[in-house]
Amino acid sequence: MKMSDISWQERYRAPFIYTLRCRIDDKVGALASLMTAISATNTHVGDIAVAGVDETTKIRDIQIFCTGEKQLDEVVGAVKKVKGIELIDVCDEVLKIHFRGMIETHSRVPIDSLTALRLVYTPGVAAMCHRIVRDPSQAREITGICDRVAIVTNGTAVLGLGDIGTLASLPVMEGKAAIFAEFAGISAETVLVNSKDVSTVVETVAMIAESFGAIQLEDIAAPTCFAIEEQLQERLNIPVLHDDQHGTATVLLAALINALKMTGRKVADCSALILGAGAAGYAIAMILRHFGIGDIVIYDSAGPIYRGRTSHMNPYKQKLAELTNKENIKDALAEGFKGKDIFIGVAQPNMVTQTMIASMARNPLVFPLSNPVGEISVDDALKAGAAVAADGRAINNALAYPGLFRGALDATAGDITFEMRLAAAYKLAELSPAGSLLPNMLDRNVHKQVAQVTAEAWKKNN
Amino acid sequence: MKMSDISWQERYRAPFIYTLRCRIDDKVGALASLMTAISATNTHVGDIAVAGVDETTKIRDIQIFCTGEKQLDEVVGAVKKVKGIELIDVCDEVLKIHFRGMIETHSRVPIDSLTALRLVYTPGVAAMCHRIVRDPSQAREITGICDRVAIVTNGTAVLGLGDIGTLASLPVMEGKAAIFAEFAGISAETVLVNSKDVSTVVETVAMIAESFGAIQLEDIAAPTCFAIEEQLQERLNIPVLHDDQHGTATVLLAALINALKMTGRKVADCSALILGAGAAGYAIAMILRHFGIGDIVIYDSAGPIYRGRTSHMNPYKQKLAELTNKENIKDALAEGFKGKDIFIGVAQPNMVTQTMIASMARNPLVFPLSNPVGEISVDDALKAGAAVAADGRAINNALAYPGLFRGALDATAGDITFEMRLAAAYKLAELSPAGSLLPNMLDRNVHKQVAQVTAEAWKKNN
Repeated sequence: MKMSDISWQERYRAPFIYTLRCRIDDKVGALASLMTAISATNTHVGDIAVAGVDETTKIRDIQIFCTGEKQLDEVVGAVKKVKGIELIDVCDEVLKIHFRGMIETHSRVPIDSLTALRLVYTPGVAAMCHRIVRDPSQAREITGICDRVAIVTNGTAVLGLGDIGTLASLPVMEGKAAIFAEFAGISAETVLVNSKDVSTVVETVAMIAESFGAIQLEDIAAPTCFAIEEQLQERLNIPVLHDDQHGTATVLLAALINALKMTGRKVADCSALILGAGAAGYAIAMILRHFGIGDIVIYDSAGPIYRGRTSHMNPYKQKLAELTNKENIKDALAEGFKGKDIFIGVAQPNMVTQTMIASMARNPLVFPLSNPVGEISVDDALKAGAAVAADGRAINNALAYPGLFRGALDATAGDITFEMRLAAAYKLAELSPAGSLLPNMLDRNVHKQVAQVTAEAWKKNN
Repeated sequence: MKMSDISWQERYRAPFIYTLRCRIDDKVGALASLMTAISATNTHVGDIAVAGVDETTKIRDIQIFCTGEKQLDEVVGAVKKVKGIELIDVCDEVLKIHFRGMIETHSRVPIDSLTALRLVYTPGVAAMCHRIVRDPSQAREITGICDRVAIVTNGTAVLGLGDIGTLASLPVMEGKAAIFAEFAGISAETVLVNSKDVSTVVETVAMIAESFGAIQLEDIAAPTCFAIEEQLQERLNIPVLHDDQHGTATVLLAALINALKMTGRKVADCSALILGAGAAGYAIAMILRHFGIGDIVIYDSAGPIYRGRTSHMNPYKQKLAELTNKENIKDALAEGFKGKDIFIGVAQPNMVTQTMIASMARNPLVFPLSNPVGEISVDDALKAGAAVAADGRAINNALAYPGLFRGALDATAGDITFEMRLAAAYKLAELSPAGSLLPNMLDRNVHKQVAQVTAEAWKKNN
């Protein structure tokens, strides 16, 4: 789907973040009237900070979340009408933070003397080349390969925005790289491959893979993503992982482990309905199977995937048909929900009704993960009887991928296996505070522990 | 040539840098006897630092430059024999500084709050994608393209080491990237393209070029390097520059400008002999021609390049034959030297004799640039009558490339033109202290000023 086909505001809720700098009379109730005015425009407020004080006024920075400039104009209009408030400035925070990009390369040592130059560059560097000529495995120790991951995309399935192309996807890749750097000490490089052809993407990545310790595939549309991942895994002896598949599946599984515990369920007794057979749907089905969920039925736009279905199939759906849907049901979606313990949506916004949720087994677990708007809202799912409900904002793959890749690099793993992803999911589940499905992704210790168990899982089997 | 074919120590002088930590009796003459012992092994000493002091002894860190472990063993043996000296530790400085590589990627903002995460990543980042969808030129402002250069090599002509392959070349590429970061605020990514085939290298680089503001080709053997550079320049609308050609040529020209001034020569009256018709030789010939040197004769392993020569030719040598050697001379090398004002060597060590230099015009300018050992030593050249002599250690392309690329990025130039390189050379010449051929490359201001004139030169013509 092209950007031009969709309503931007519909598809991505409140991606615009502004700060309003206001001078406010320093008396009780002034902030309250400002908040009232903003809320009348149906706008969410974020951080509020005091930026300055004088004898009679305070300067406050008020962060607001908007769907676009129209909503900003409404807020600005509303704020200007409030008595005792002066709007000093409006700052586009996202634009400010993305100015000149999110990431930059540094030298690990300052080059401030001739000696440093001799060590970093010629003649010293030649001794390092010589070491690698004699023993290529030393490249892992004396170059950045040990910390370097390529983030590869062809821009065909970016966030919830669709096929927006490589260039427009770059801010997302840089954001991912910033998260890699912050949470896992990984130096990620953004690799935009300007092709939709499987073998071109594979050839290009294989040709430049030598300087990386691992490859993260990102935002590549299904079913192309499966073939690219498979072929690169076969060609290269470093891990290749499509994050939209396995990052999401790992975090979902972690949440599910806790949800099953909360509702006292046994894995093997559970049945799950997955709506969506794209990248995430396929990977979730596979990891749930590996995890031991009793029965899984997957629906796509053409209905349930079953053995013998002929329309809208591809080799990956064929594989799903063979491995899931034990009773080979062919029911329509509403019928499919009946009696299921788990619902996972990785399809489109607002496809699921409260009636469907109400028809599931008692205390169902509901994960409407479609971004930015779920298949059903968390509120509606809970109202309809869900014991647990969490959407795509909670099930964030950034909880898994930094640790998965850090662990794989540390273990010099050749792959990020099912066992490694399962270990990561169990650790994420274990680190969640009581009553929570998942731990806080800002906690560096979480990523460190995920990395540890991931590395151990590789070492145990290799 | 493969590494295994050559004597490492011969080809790369003293690339091993060690620090000897010694406890020395704290009395006059102790350091002198240590220095005497080290110098008896014919070993050069670098920095000496006091690392600790107690009542009767000093701990000193003494840096030494060795051709390999054999020389280190000799030094260690000699030091151990000195009375009143205890050798505490030996540290391989190059290895230490290259451990885990020279460069790393950082996030420009700390991700330490949910707000930061919303700005850097979802949902905020979607607004940035949307901006680029609407107006692709905004990618220059809201992504790292404005500061990002790809350092591309296929590992076929690395330093003076030859065809050592991509992996073994990585420390050099990382060293170059560290210099880019330190001197020009450029975030360089190392791109190892594992192919010797022109069109494969071109296709691969073109396929991933979108996230870069410029491409630096590095250590690619001639004549492949010419075709790769030409084809990429044609395909891409960003600068593509082979540093071994144009970085070297720019710095050489800067030194030559000063050398001509020192010896009171007019450009048009000068004749030059270039030994070597590889990457650097070709580019130097072209820029000297553009600069206005009266006559240039180029020699390669098969003798002088002239119109009508048929052996050991390629299209680039053909072009040289057409554009240089006014009198179409076919003399042997020794004869060719006679009466020349300028000698530039970009070939092999020790190919030039004092007799050859002595046969040149009065006060000749001699640049034996072959690395790490020149065509003739600077000492020998001076003894033979050279007014100016400088080798590859002085004519360092790292003086030019950071500023050239910074300027090109700042001007959003589509190319790094002759005019830009000439402007850089004139600026480097101008910034040299009196009596010096070139400025200090550690001086950040030099790179900044080179960037400025480079950017201006683009803007003047575009």
